[in-house]
Amino acid sequence: MTLSADRLAALDAFIVELNSASAGAILPLFRSDHGLEDKAAGKNLPRDTHAAFDPVTEADRGAEAAIRKLIAERFPEHGVIGEEYGEDRPDAEFVWVLDPVDGTRAFISGLPLWTTLIGLRHQGRPVLGSIGQPYVGELYVGSAALGSRLIARGTEKALRVRACAVLTDAIIATTDPEACFDGAELGAWRQVRAAAKLARLGCDAYAYAMVAAGTMDMVIEAGLKSWDVEAAIPLIEGAGGVVTDWRGAPIGQHGGQMAIAGDQRVLDEALVALKRSAK
Amino acid sequence: MTLSADRLAALDAFIVELNSASAGAILPLFRSDHGLEDKAAGKNLPRDTHAAFDPVTEADRGAEAAIRKLIAERFPEHGVIGEEYGEDRPDAEFVWVLDPVDGTRAFISGLPLWTTLIGLRHQGRPVLGSIGQPYVGELYVGSAALGSRLIARGTEKALRVRACAVLTDAIIATTDPEACFDGAELGAWRQVRAAAKLARLGCDAYAYAMVAAGTMDMVIEAGLKSWDVEAAIPLIEGAGGVVTDWRGAPIGQHGGQMAIAGDQRVLDEALVALKRSAK
Repeated sequence: MTLSADRLAALDAFIVELNSASAGAILPLFRSDHGLEDKAAGKNLPRDTHAAFDPVTEADRGAEAAIRKLIAERFPEHGVIGEEYGEDRPDAEFVWVLDPVDGTRAFISGLPLWTTLIGLRHQGRPVLGSIGQPYVGELYVGSAALGSRLIARGTEKALRVRACAVLTDAIIATTDPEACFDGAELGAWRQVRAAAKLARLGCDAYAYAMVAAGTMDMVIEAGLKSWDVEAAIPLIEGAGGVVTDWRGAPIGQHGGQMAIAGDQRVLDEALVALKRSAK
Repeated sequence: MTLSADRLAALDAFIVELNSASAGAILPLFRSDHGLEDKAAGKNLPRDTHAAFDPVTEADRGAEAAIRKLIAERFPEHGVIGEEYGEDRPDAEFVWVLDPVDGTRAFISGLPLWTTLIGLRHQGRPVLGSIGQPYVGELYVGSAALGSRLIARGTEKALRVRACAVLTDAIIATTDPEACFDGAELGAWRQVRAAAKLARLGCDAYAYAMVAAGTMDMVIEAGLKSWDVEAAIPLIEGAGGVVTDWRGAPIGQHGGQMAIAGDQRVLDEALVALKRSAK
């Protein structure tokens, strides 16, 4: 069944509701006692790698539960995939893919760059996505069909990537090269960074929103899960940008290596280096 | 002349006014056409180092002019040192030290982690300081004598560092190790990071505020100017923390290498590594 514009618009309104419910669960816990525990404790992994330090907070769990409750009430036939509570009906026509607190490390550090990621698959394809930062008061929502917009403190603004013809003019981002990339990936990142105008670190998924908004040109990440990335794809496409893996192919349903760009020309330049470290 | 509590309280109220004036000049330019130019253009320096890419925006200049105007009206005898407009009466009894947009790279990337830094020296010693993020709606203000507080969207909250007995429990931060540290400094950072619980990158001076607020434990930076650091010293001291250079000595009036910690014990552990790369 094809997805009508009316149906997509209704789902778009619903994703705003989901973000409100999620924010209601998260905000009281930001910069307070957030019930930190470490899912990797006792696994004897190297310190401070993505694998070794995997904090889970009451905020993650409370928000995912709030989102799942609302979906179950309104669209009981929809599937849900979330970081905290696993998969329900992952083969349904519509499947929500959730990461209520992406950037848990930013969250526990008190930094307002963690985000709530909510994506919607229709027949296996990401069609709608949002990146919310409710402490700052921003919600970035988009779809390839309806376009993308920023809802911030009662105002709405269309989102559009910016043109950037060459990598030497590009502002690029990744979260933490030494902790998130393996040796080959780190080499590729350094090669791209050496050519770029400016690199920013530590932004997690907030950087994806900056590409959609046209204030950054490219984000390069690796080791992602599906819930780290699916919300971004429709948002970026709706703003005129492109999301691929490190070979330049569409991102599958299992995350992995990702490049997000506002302008295909910058991505093409970066792919020369990224392809050699593609998995 | 000693600085009375009444006089300091009046200056504390004035620093809030200065932040309002600064925000009025900056916010209309955030994520809009901010008149970017590159002070280092044509200098043929290596790309993307602190020296090579030195963006200045209308926001910096407009805000510094607005702050200087208010100081000249209210306290014409005070000195001012600022990144954009140089030094006026740097030997006065009171000297304001200004960086209206610290984290210009964050600013031009659309990221809401740039800050407005305003410090006040009395007889050469930093006695009052503020870190403002007006887009998020936060102003961190403090002094050793009066304590430190967060003013956020109409509420005020006392700021207090948290206890952290050992580096292995610490959340630490620096802005960009590969771009901001030389080889010896990078080695020291990596040694400290390897022992810490968690490291965050890309925060600029916003991380100082997180130490004052007790959500981070230590920030390590190098190559700072006086206006990058003087605002932080009274804020951190007023919250119960400590600011030193990489030898563990007080920061002079010329910036350089800096470590900020909420708990002296964590700083002492880090200094074992930092001292070997101290300048």
